[in-house]
Amino acid sequence: MAKKRILTGDTPTGKLHIGHYVGTLENRVKLQDQYETFIIEADLHALSTLSKSPTKINEYLHEVLLDNLAVGLDPGKATFFAESLVPEIYELAAFLSMYVSHNRALRNPTVKDEIKMKGLGDTFSLGFVNYPIYQAADILCVKANLVPVGVDQVAHLEQTRELAKDLNSVAGREVFPIPEALVGRVGKLVGTDGNPKMGKSLNNTIFLSEGDEEIERKIRNMYTDPKRIHATDPGTVDGNPVFIYLDAFSKEEHKTQIEDFKNRYKTGQVKDTEIKEYLSELMKDFIRPIRELRKKYESQPEESDRIIKAGSERVREIVVQTLADVKKSLNFIS
Amino acid sequence: MAKKRILTGDTPTGKLHIGHYVGTLENRVKLQDQYETFIIEADLHALSTLSKSPTKINEYLHEVLLDNLAVGLDPGKATFFAESLVPEIYELAAFLSMYVSHNRALRNPTVKDEIKMKGLGDTFSLGFVNYPIYQAADILCVKANLVPVGVDQVAHLEQTRELAKDLNSVAGREVFPIPEALVGRVGKLVGTDGNPKMGKSLNNTIFLSEGDEEIERKIRNMYTDPKRIHATDPGTVDGNPVFIYLDAFSKEEHKTQIEDFKNRYKTGQVKDTEIKEYLSELMKDFIRPIRELRKKYESQPEESDRIIKAGSERVREIVVQTLADVKKSLNFIS
Repeated sequence: MAKKRILTGDTPTGKLHIGHYVGTLENRVKLQDQYETFIIEADLHALSTLSKSPTKINEYLHEVLLDNLAVGLDPGKATFFAESLVPEIYELAAFLSMYVSHNRALRNPTVKDEIKMKGLGDTFSLGFVNYPIYQAADILCVKANLVPVGVDQVAHLEQTRELAKDLNSVAGREVFPIPEALVGRVGKLVGTDGNPKMGKSLNNTIFLSEGDEEIERKIRNMYTDPKRIHATDPGTVDGNPVFIYLDAFSKEEHKTQIEDFKNRYKTGQVKDTEIKEYLSELMKDFIRPIRELRKKYESQPEESDRIIKAGSERVREIVVQTLADVKKSLNFIS
Repeated sequence: MAKKRILTGDTPTGKLHIGHYVGTLENRVKLQDQYETFIIEADLHALSTLSKSPTKINEYLHEVLLDNLAVGLDPGKATFFAESLVPEIYELAAFLSMYVSHNRALRNPTVKDEIKMKGLGDTFSLGFVNYPIYQAADILCVKANLVPVGVDQVAHLEQTRELAKDLNSVAGREVFPIPEALVGRVGKLVGTDGNPKMGKSLNNTIFLSEGDEEIERKIRNMYTDPKRIHATDPGTVDGNPVFIYLDAFSKEEHKTQIEDFKNRYKTGQVKDTEIKEYLSELMKDFIRPIRELRKKYESQPEESDRIIKAGSERVREIVVQTLADVKKSLNFIS
């Protein structure tokens, strides 16, 4: 029996960070044996935020690919592809865009959030409004069954599911499986500053390629319980970024120590610095092997280039079939 | 020196009629020697109105192709292509959509008019809002210099011109020529019922494939001056559909007779039936050779199939180059 398919990916607007790791990368690695995995680098999507500096996207695309390989995705198992190397995705998106109302697209909660967060006012591009449809096309073009996503992306997937159902209904048969969302272990990681949203532009994250000194500095400056002035003050553990990170990045062997820290924190018997030093070591241990594997791939640029191009060719063959399937259903010329 | 390029075309939602002839077909024929002419059958566009009955589009595509050939477009000179056979057009549209604001797209006067005319309220699709961008991609994908359009389409072209300028500016060089509009001799032909808008759904037009009896019936029922009850009443010539058609479809040899009719009409010295019979003969003489040439092509379906497929392949080679050119300008992966 053929393996079920996963479609997941990144918009290359910067290097990946620990938020991406817990949100989606971890699941990608875990599932790459069980599923036929496709990972899109959505470079054309990236234009919706980088339209004035498009030349950076190509560089980010390679960085993001390195980040994926560095966390343990095996290019022999997962297929990486660049969206812009598969033009048929956009023809599929054009078909889909005829089956979603303009109002429905504007109601997409992620679109609304992004407009607010990026302060776009009413100046956003038409491409920005098309974003959920392009994403639906990314998912449906390989007929994916499962989509590992950050909690932010669940709303996008709902629109993809609606479109798959609508197209199946127009076609009178199952052209597309209805994809399911798989939210990561930690749906959304808070920033080092306690901001519920983490991001490069917010300067509140740790990159997967971060060096030890930077990790130490960032952890040292982390936001904790602001009401706790002295080591002897009782503090709050719930929602405290330091403890969230301890829970998110610890292994089984750390659990006892972390429980002890939590108890001492609540009762005012531990210094912030002691816990932060512990977290700092833990994060450095977590990042080190990733950074080292990344260096290996960095030293072979022709290899990562080959990975993305061979993957894009393979995906293109699949998408040409998908599109032919859609067109046949709608009786288009072939 | 290479010939300049024309891009023009049709959305296959029904057979073409005399309004299309004076608006654009006449110019296509006239210019096919002077320009390298590309004629798109925008079948995917047609989904924006036929999303619930997509299987009809293919049939209309062939009808519209026949209409074009029937009016004298030479498939050895003009290149016909189906939009859905050139997926790269949609990738180009995706690039363009990042450079037009959502607000600007909604302000497009033709989009606003269509929403009103078709009574779409707020139920229109996202694809419908994308329509002007898809049209811009159609024009820019072959780097057209001239676009023969109906007067309705001038606003669309303005958006295309803006996008060409924007992309050239981002690229720092001329990727696209700035296309010019060429409005037909009669910008917009009134319907047989006097409605300023003519269309199949309004049941107020004469098809280019119409039979003699139908032409006679339609002319006999034409709207004239409603205030003129008797043949002896003075009538109004300006804006009178019968006289508009006489002016639009007559040849040099008819001019004297038409002037005489106008004078007698203004002074109440002619019956409506006399003028309508004259117009009826004139229209039948106009349609007959078109209908006959159409029959020739109708009897060779494999030939029209070959024309559209060979043309689509040729255009695809051009568009792959255009897209590569855009991507190179934006430093995308290649």
